[in-house]
Amino acid sequence: MLRVVKIGGHVIDSPELLHEFLTGFSRIEGPKILVHGGGKDATRMAEQLGIENKIIEGRRITDAAMLEVVIQSFTKLNINIVSQLQQFGTSAIGLSGADFDCIRAKKRSHPEIDYGFVGDIVNVNFEGIQSLLHLGMTPVFCALTHDGNGQLLNTNADTIASSIAQYSTLATELIYCFEKGGVLKNENDEKSVMDTVSLQSYKKYLDTGIIHGGMKPKLDNAFDALNKGVLQVRITHYSSLLGGTQVQL
Amino acid sequence: MLRVVKIGGHVIDSPELLHEFLTGFSRIEGPKILVHGGGKDATRMAEQLGIENKIIEGRRITDAAMLEVVIQSFTKLNINIVSQLQQFGTSAIGLSGADFDCIRAKKRSHPEIDYGFVGDIVNVNFEGIQSLLHLGMTPVFCALTHDGNGQLLNTNADTIASSIAQYSTLATELIYCFEKGGVLKNENDEKSVMDTVSLQSYKKYLDTGIIHGGMKPKLDNAFDALNKGVLQVRITHYSSLLGGTQVQL
Repeated sequence: MLRVVKIGGHVIDSPELLHEFLTGFSRIEGPKILVHGGGKDATRMAEQLGIENKIIEGRRITDAAMLEVVIQSFTKLNINIVSQLQQFGTSAIGLSGADFDCIRAKKRSHPEIDYGFVGDIVNVNFEGIQSLLHLGMTPVFCALTHDGNGQLLNTNADTIASSIAQYSTLATELIYCFEKGGVLKNENDEKSVMDTVSLQSYKKYLDTGIIHGGMKPKLDNAFDALNKGVLQVRITHYSSLLGGTQVQL
Repeated sequence: MLRVVKIGGHVIDSPELLHEFLTGFSRIEGPKILVHGGGKDATRMAEQLGIENKIIEGRRITDAAMLEVVIQSFTKLNINIVSQLQQFGTSAIGLSGADFDCIRAKKRSHPEIDYGFVGDIVNVNFEGIQSLLHLGMTPVFCALTHDGNGQLLNTNADTIASSIAQYSTLATELIYCFEKGGVLKNENDEKSVMDTVSLQSYKKYLDTGIIHGGMKPKLDNAFDALNKGVLQVRITHYSSLLGGTQVQL
């Protein structure tokens, strides 16, 4: 089973939590892929340089100056994760979508909002990624893709993870990790982790407001992946990669 | 013939020159590897952030704050080069020494000077690099290595190129590219490019001062590579990769 693990949220912003996560990740047996988001570093770096942070509907507007910052922040995090994984004996290799044209995207076009240099994925070269897995390497993706014409694009890390899993020709599990134990029945009770969420119950939870905010796009990505043939999807705590909530059709 | 090409100097600092170089590089047939230095971007970025630039004997002193800057600057340049090469149809893959533990180094220890996070290479995993070449990929290295314990290290790009060529088990040519046509007989005459420099003539040119400054470590690296079995070494202009000065024992 190939495991595609996405890490984000507070974990990325804390060296201690990240270290704990990477220790666990390196212990996963069999082929695995890591996809990481950017955390708050890009925002902090932009502030330092006096670049305005624009966010519309949870998505960062990436103008040319912000793209520069995002690239610096994401690639720095990527290389740090790779060097830490080496310490744990995982033969990590840091990647963006531009490497061997492995994730190609198209600059988003939207009738009303100019998202800037934001990319929507059009192709994943899974054969190339699989070649690296065959060499015993563990690909570590940052949230950058490219358009094939020399332009890098900022792309949502949840979507990258889901797309890689969807293009995979192997039996694949997609795992979304963050600082909570899974999908919560009661957001004020960290222990109220659901064992499973089905598509049917998801619709009910949406109506009643039990599931809302950032969890919605995550679950949309999860169901999308299941619909496209991904074998299993899990949403779980960064320290318990094989626990948490199982998402089911 | 495997060609290991090192690019640095002014070429790195100018998008136009870099574009011209990459066009030529992408046209080299057969397996190839690119190694790039950092240019002036790290210095500029450090100034912007109020971090002091310390250089002793042409080597940057890399304290923790400067290492952060160097990492950001080098990885940003690396990913930009990779995405541009894709545009020219070269299946580039961006690497640092931490990726699949391909270049391991040791923090430099010096009796008098604390160079900070500067690494001296102790091993190149050429087998791993060769696996990527076999997949038709073109590795693009930035000037960062690691110590195997999670620490990234700033490492001279000329030395990285020379080391990769030395560890290569293939017939290998090492090519140092910059903004001059090769080794000049008269530094004020850009046309006075020597066809060859032998070890014997090098010693003579050193004595007479014809070769001095930054050309000395470059030629020392070149002779070092030839002594360790690298088939050919060339110092040439960034737009004429197979021209310039041939270095011979």
